Amino acid sequence: MINSWEGPAGCEGLFSLKKTSCEIICVGTEILLGDIVNTNAQYIAAGLAKLGIDVYYQTVVGDNAERFGRALEIAKGRADVIITTGGLGPTYDDLTKETVAESFGRKLMMNERCLNDLTCFFAHNHRTMTVNNKKQAMMPEGSIVLDNPQGTAPGCIIEGEDGKIAIMMPGPPREMKPMFDNLVAPYLKKYSDSMLFSRVIRVIGLGESTMEERVLDIMESMTNPTVAPYAKSGECILRVTAKAHDEAEAHRLMDPVVEEIRSRLGDYVYGVDVDSIERHVVGLLNGLGRTIALAEVGTGGMAVERLSEVAGSAEVLKLGMTSGSLSGMDCLIGKRERPEGPTHDALQDAAISLASGIEELTRADLGVGLIKGAGTICIAVVDGTKVKTETYDYPSSRDAEYVDLIASSRAFDMIRRFLNH
Amino acid sequence: MINSWEGPAGCEGLFSLKKTSCEIICVGTEILLGDIVNTNAQYIAAGLAKLGIDVYYQTVVGDNAERFGRALEIAKGRADVIITTGGLGPTYDDLTKETVAESFGRKLMMNERCLNDLTCFFAHNHRTMTVNNKKQAMMPEGSIVLDNPQGTAPGCIIEGEDGKIAIMMPGPPREMKPMFDNLVAPYLKKYSDSMLFSRVIRVIGLGESTMEERVLDIMESMTNPTVAPYAKSGECILRVTAKAHDEAEAHRLMDPVVEEIRSRLGDYVYGVDVDSIERHVVGLLNGLGRTIALAEVGTGGMAVERLSEVAGSAEVLKLGMTSGSLSGMDCLIGKRERPEGPTHDALQDAAISLASGIEELTRADLGVGLIKGAGTICIAVVDGTKVKTETYDYPSSRDAEYVDLIASSRAFDMIRRFLNH
Repeated sequence: MINSWEGPAGCEGLFSLKKTSCEIICVGTEILLGDIVNTNAQYIAAGLAKLGIDVYYQTVVGDNAERFGRALEIAKGRADVIITTGGLGPTYDDLTKETVAESFGRKLMMNERCLNDLTCFFAHNHRTMTVNNKKQAMMPEGSIVLDNPQGTAPGCIIEGEDGKIAIMMPGPPREMKPMFDNLVAPYLKKYSDSMLFSRVIRVIGLGESTMEERVLDIMESMTNPTVAPYAKSGECILRVTAKAHDEAEAHRLMDPVVEEIRSRLGDYVYGVDVDSIERHVVGLLNGLGRTIALAEVGTGGMAVERLSEVAGSAEVLKLGMTSGSLSGMDCLIGKRERPEGPTHDALQDAAISLASGIEELTRADLGVGLIKGAGTICIAVVDGTKVKTETYDYPSSRDAEYVDLIASSRAFDMIRRFLNH
Repeated sequence: MINSWEGPAGCEGLFSLKKTSCEIICVGTEILLGDIVNTNAQYIAAGLAKLGIDVYYQTVVGDNAERFGRALEIAKGRADVIITTGGLGPTYDDLTKETVAESFGRKLMMNERCLNDLTCFFAHNHRTMTVNNKKQAMMPEGSIVLDNPQGTAPGCIIEGEDGKIAIMMPGPPREMKPMFDNLVAPYLKKYSDSMLFSRVIRVIGLGESTMEERVLDIMESMTNPTVAPYAKSGECILRVTAKAHDEAEAHRLMDPVVEEIRSRLGDYVYGVDVDSIERHVVGLLNGLGRTIALAEVGTGGMAVERLSEVAGSAEVLKLGMTSGSLSGMDCLIGKRERPEGPTHDALQDAAISLASGIEELTRADLGVGLIKGAGTICIAVVDGTKVKTETYDYPSSRDAEYVDLIASSRAFDMIRRFLNH
């Protein structure tokens, strides 16, 4: 039974609300062979965690009715809701619906609406519908159909007489994810007495431990919301997570905490609930109507690539230049300005030359020079009136791509501060 | 019992070698919460598939001794070898060794060699060893220790009296992967009567179905090796897989098939058993002692980024220029050469201007211009004597990053052919 009141629980001597638990079973021989990574399990697990529904087990089993059937019986013995992915296709080895229906004592019946949808899908995509495909419109009797606008395999929900629930979804992530978000998560909300909501504070320029130190008392004293720090590719994140019945209640709990943390960390916070520093910078530039050009040495074009991926970047990013060495930039800065050695000052001069050179060449409003040397990152940002440089050391043991990520994040943060002040 | 001869198997009336089967149990609450994707299971599964060892189930369970213990008993009931990851850390919720040892009726004992390794590890990394850390040197009695040079948690193997085997590895992939490759896979070889070996034929410029058509008779007639086609991010792959006792036998089976396919697909094959087209191109340039410079419009610098990631690319790649629009390249090609409209000819002229412009600017041996327009990719490659252009259409429904990948792969393949002819 789900969400039912149970009798006295052990020595606690209290009535407790039994929480609904869920098991995820992913069906697919290609997962067992290691041909694909099981991202479905992760996606569903994260969604269930957000709904406040416990997951104690995940299982993967191949396209084999007997072994899947046994896994299903084990799952029914230890979870209230079983969510499956995969095995809803048209071929003979797609046996999920058949196996689950049998376990729940249901027959498969032709669902006329599903058959109609399927016929339309094939007509719309100029494909011929085979006899096999009709199998996908067969549904367990009395089940709730989950439409699949992304593909040919609808999902379904069986609510068993014994209180157990089976939810079947297709295997391809691009079909499964919208089905989970739009249909399964809303369905499961009734089994969740409280949900998790998060706000994310993003920080660049403070190490994780320094950041933690500044807010340690908040982290230690709060229980709802909780405050947890993460280090992530060139930046630090503080996630404020509240357990609440709805979004409004969650905001009442979280917002004062977010404001307090924000005021303590000051300008190191580049944004709250924003996607990424590059998106933030493109937004800033777009808002100010200013353009930018970047010259990068040693980072493989990471900064330009990250900016380019942001929607709206084509309007603000005029040009990026990339080389593995300063000599590759001869055409931009000329040989006379190349530094004698890898000293900090020489690198700084070179970064300024890059920034000024590309600003002049492209007539962008801002020019940025970014150099990754041995153990040192040097960044220069210039416009018509200002020149700023910053230098950071990095441990040479870190892998190159990680350092490129840090270097580009630092450059973006410097651009943000350059524009804000 | 493992690899034992069993009695008459059903109606076959034959003695058959029972194959060893394996179950993978990943221990970690962070997987159940969806905080991380379970890449460990995929890595181990792929390794076992290569060894010819069957996997029928994968299980994920949290850091909870009781639930892990139950999952372990289920696994022992349906598999010969149980491989676990995770739960070998120093904290109170790391309970894998304790739980497995109990299930196999073994005690945990301090292993002096492990303790010594651990002490050295901490001294070497200038960290203080806590009492908790000593727990990591406790090993099940009679177990085979698996050294972990990457971290503080050694793994171990218990060979049970009932023939069941448990293999425990740490959770962090950078510790688990070398342990699996260097210690666990060699250990498991004795339970594998034949292994899988693959050769990979890489093709650019032929669609998957056209490629398949040319070798369909081989694909359909062969059973060992098998030949399977894959479409993969801008290229097609034919994987030739042989089941054999050793590498020499595998080569005897595969090599004639690889040669036959190669001769049928001709110049569309850019390499066999090579990593990627960009690595192949960097290798070609390095071998010829030639340098290259690229100007890209609309691809976010994808081609330069892919080249930059290849070791040795700094010597051959002089400069990359990236812009979201042709106007960003004004400084390179001048306004006079900008095409009037997005016609194929105008795009081709622009691509040639980009290629010639960057070749002149940088004095690289080869200049490449790559333009992603609406629905059309245009590539030009020039050197002192030759000019070549190619134009491809792409469906506008494909996502941008995928098209960037295809565009850069096409450019690399064109550079390869430019250099070879």
